[in-house]
Amino acid sequence: MSSRPARRHYRKLDLPVWQVRRYLEPGPIVLVTSALGGARNIMTMGWHTVMEFTPSLVGCMIASGNHSFELIRRSRQCVINLPTTALVDEVVGIGNTSGAEIDKFAKFALTAERAERVTAPLIRECYANFECKLADGTLIDKYNFFIFEVVKAHVASSPRYPETLHYTGDGAFMVAGKIISRRAQFRPELLSQ
Amino acid sequence: MSSRPARRHYRKLDLPVWQVRRYLEPGPIVLVTSALGGARNIMTMGWHTVMEFTPSLVGCMIASGNHSFELIRRSRQCVINLPTTALVDEVVGIGNTSGAEIDKFAKFALTAERAERVTAPLIRECYANFECKLADGTLIDKYNFFIFEVVKAHVASSPRYPETLHYTGDGAFMVAGKIISRRAQFRPELLSQ
Repeated sequence: MSSRPARRHYRKLDLPVWQVRRYLEPGPIVLVTSALGGARNIMTMGWHTVMEFTPSLVGCMIASGNHSFELIRRSRQCVINLPTTALVDEVVGIGNTSGAEIDKFAKFALTAERAERVTAPLIRECYANFECKLADGTLIDKYNFFIFEVVKAHVASSPRYPETLHYTGDGAFMVAGKIISRRAQFRPELLSQ
Repeated sequence: MSSRPARRHYRKLDLPVWQVRRYLEPGPIVLVTSALGGARNIMTMGWHTVMEFTPSLVGCMIASGNHSFELIRRSRQCVINLPTTALVDEVVGIGNTSGAEIDKFAKFALTAERAERVTAPLIRECYANFECKLADGTLIDKYNFFIFEVVKAHVASSPRYPETLHYTGDGAFMVAGKIISRRAQFRPELLSQ
């Protein structure tokens, strides 16, 4: 498939931060933005997991070779931005270039918007933006593993289920979007989570 | 959607363990099997992340309220089994019942097969089975976070891309299966990973 959907301008609403699992648990590739002093950057990230509802914790692997690593480690903040299939070429381009050499916002024509709780910018063209502060850095030295708390979540009001990209390695993404609901088969106490 | 594909009997091949990211990075719901003494169990898990290629590390959140928690913590082993959409009802059923009360292999008509490197059983009806040993338990007490090393990987020889389930909460799964390849746009050194 070489075509892709058109970019959209989303209208976003606040989402209670304990609900970010709705978008991160399915395992999409995400774009992580960071800022420190006058520098800013964007990186792709596929290795992450939800760790808790409240506080809203997300564990992220950020390889130390990335230009973003020091920006995030020293600022203790980032934004996790959720791209859809409309941004597949930007996702690939961002993963194949270094912020040490280019301004990726300019290069990929993405719009930096001011966040509310962190200095790192939001990417306007993404479906959702999760503002994060470092909650636990004890595994950074050993594994490059950062545990962030999501402190503010902005999510597009439609569509309900975005078509997201799930990286398999070797240049290929799985696309998720079709939904199977089994709500009626769940114990009620599991549905509030 | 209420129908589902038929169960399959897969022929499986060994996969080099550093390649398990191909199946886990996209973020599917998985079935985790465990065994201790005469007990065995199956649980669903949606909160996990790849952490390293070599050794092949996977970080997993296993809530302490699960019957599987003690089986895994004490045996220091598990198997991560990858179900496809053909098993959606088994996935839901396994997540909505407790191994303290029933034998889930019997209840859901799943076949336990002997693993090579661990005592926990493989689920034959799953597309892939990753045998795991605990590599780092230092975050179990604080976060219920287990870092496993995949020591043996069995993967179906076809189809190349299985149709997997990605949980969003609230009883709904996203389905991933369609592929977008951007291989030609990647820097060569990133494709070997």
